[in-house]
Amino acid sequence: MSRATRVACVGAGNVGRAWSLVFARGGCEVLLYDSAPGAAERALELIAASASDLEQANLVDSATELLQRIRPASSLAEAVAKADHVQESVREDVAIKREVFGTLGEITPAITTLASSTSALPATDFSADVKHRERCLVAHPVNPPSLIPLVELCPSRWTSPEALDRVRELMLRVGQRPIVLKKEVPGFILNRLQYTLVAEALHLVGEGYCDAEDIDAVLTEGLALRWAHLGPFAVAHLNATEGFRGFVDQLGEMMRTVGREARPDYDWDNALIDRIHEQMASSMPVSDIPAKQLQRDRRIMSLLSLREEWHEDSRDPDNV
Amino acid sequence: MSRATRVACVGAGNVGRAWSLVFARGGCEVLLYDSAPGAAERALELIAASASDLEQANLVDSATELLQRIRPASSLAEAVAKADHVQESVREDVAIKREVFGTLGEITPAITTLASSTSALPATDFSADVKHRERCLVAHPVNPPSLIPLVELCPSRWTSPEALDRVRELMLRVGQRPIVLKKEVPGFILNRLQYTLVAEALHLVGEGYCDAEDIDAVLTEGLALRWAHLGPFAVAHLNATEGFRGFVDQLGEMMRTVGREARPDYDWDNALIDRIHEQMASSMPVSDIPAKQLQRDRRIMSLLSLREEWHEDSRDPDNV
Repeated sequence: MSRATRVACVGAGNVGRAWSLVFARGGCEVLLYDSAPGAAERALELIAASASDLEQANLVDSATELLQRIRPASSLAEAVAKADHVQESVREDVAIKREVFGTLGEITPAITTLASSTSALPATDFSADVKHRERCLVAHPVNPPSLIPLVELCPSRWTSPEALDRVRELMLRVGQRPIVLKKEVPGFILNRLQYTLVAEALHLVGEGYCDAEDIDAVLTEGLALRWAHLGPFAVAHLNATEGFRGFVDQLGEMMRTVGREARPDYDWDNALIDRIHEQMASSMPVSDIPAKQLQRDRRIMSLLSLREEWHEDSRDPDNV
Repeated sequence: MSRATRVACVGAGNVGRAWSLVFARGGCEVLLYDSAPGAAERALELIAASASDLEQANLVDSATELLQRIRPASSLAEAVAKADHVQESVREDVAIKREVFGTLGEITPAITTLASSTSALPATDFSADVKHRERCLVAHPVNPPSLIPLVELCPSRWTSPEALDRVRELMLRVGQRPIVLKKEVPGFILNRLQYTLVAEALHLVGEGYCDAEDIDAVLTEGLALRWAHLGPFAVAHLNATEGFRGFVDQLGEMMRTVGREARPDYDWDNALIDRIHEQMASSMPVSDIPAKQLQRDRRIMSLLSLREEWHEDSRDPDNV
């Protein structure tokens, strides 16, 4: 048997912790590093709690074995020295990313792939001067990646097909669902779709058409009951007897009109943000956020179990 | 005991059939009318099949009893003569809506509420000349309303608060989840959010950043695993320790930038629609659409059962 893949997780915040779980669950040996003294050790306690939650939901076999594969590193050099892959999850600031990637380029073997968890910054903007920059790319997870499979792989202008393939293969092996962008674009796919919708939502609340809770109801009681199992193109394809083309024949004009009317450039201000914050906090006080995050994660776990049942049914030849 | 509420469903297509199920499941007496000869009778066979599916999923107690409450009407006058509420679901064409509402105004008692299922047209555009126009409004369902609870109530400039209240109360009583728009806006809330996201998706596929199947994966493997239980504002509120305001403090700049970069006015053409259609049809051939629609509806049903479990857990004081 070949040796386990070695992954260094750099940055031990929410995202770095969840990545550690993902890679360790997938059988990798993980070294976790954070530049704040003691942060990696403290992160391990939170990781242990999440691993136990995953075990209870039957989403990992053994939390104990998983945790044995994650260790804190006392320096960046120690974390990455023998790594096959480095997953960077430090603060979202292009200058900091540039500095961290510069250092990683110097202290890692040329074969080590270097991926950033950035949610919007193209790798071309922070990896130009990295040694062997053809191994740098973005691997953007969705919070928390230990529960949400999607990963956006976005190569820079100089990322090699080999580096991209290795990272894609690693993501598949640890159970994530990678998509690969064909060209760089700020915000990638997920955040462009998410924040375009949010921008229109801010416009609708800001101009007094509805309240924030109505927006949330439109998703939870409406759109997402379809989107949790069929994406928007598949929804349209099944909403007309002649498929997607037939749907656009019938509703294309409305799609176009609504698109033209949308205001993703809407100039929202702090007063609107405060108003929405108060609406959110009235049902979810800020002091309840940790408990509500746990509830969120448990609900995602039950959605994942349900999807497993669907996939098993699909493999049954009696079902469609 | 007071008599059952009488509802006339006008138009026996997909939407009218699902509305008949909703009202009959909620205990109303339903008369179903369609201007095409024999269409209402044929619709009843499809409704019977759906009712049986709902019974199997424990979403109705007795399909037989439900079906006894739906009858075909041989004329529009017969359908609406004694109706407390008329739900219009004819073709999406403002001239046709205007004509149907004009007739309904003449042949119904002034107390009868008149709601349109239109997915984008403001009621002000087709109810100006209706007799007692203060009872006209939009009640926009999500396909299929027998499974998806959200209903957008959108009063016109002249809809009375009493008529709006009566329709809202009826929707709650039959188990739907109404939201009320404060001002008219084309596309209401749901389709503005949906087609703003779709417009950006068309832009991303059209300009070669990704394929249609990547867009669908971003929803089913990413965003919708959260949106199926938390709307976008609630997601943001739980993604920062200081709630929504804290989230915007950290990521507001990215939200603004992505909004400004979005292209909901993107000028897509038929070649793009054809390309997406072929991508959809390669995994879901047009001939499989009826079977895939059934699979979609069964998956929504299992999502609804899961949500029931969540709500029961929330009522348990040991849970959050």
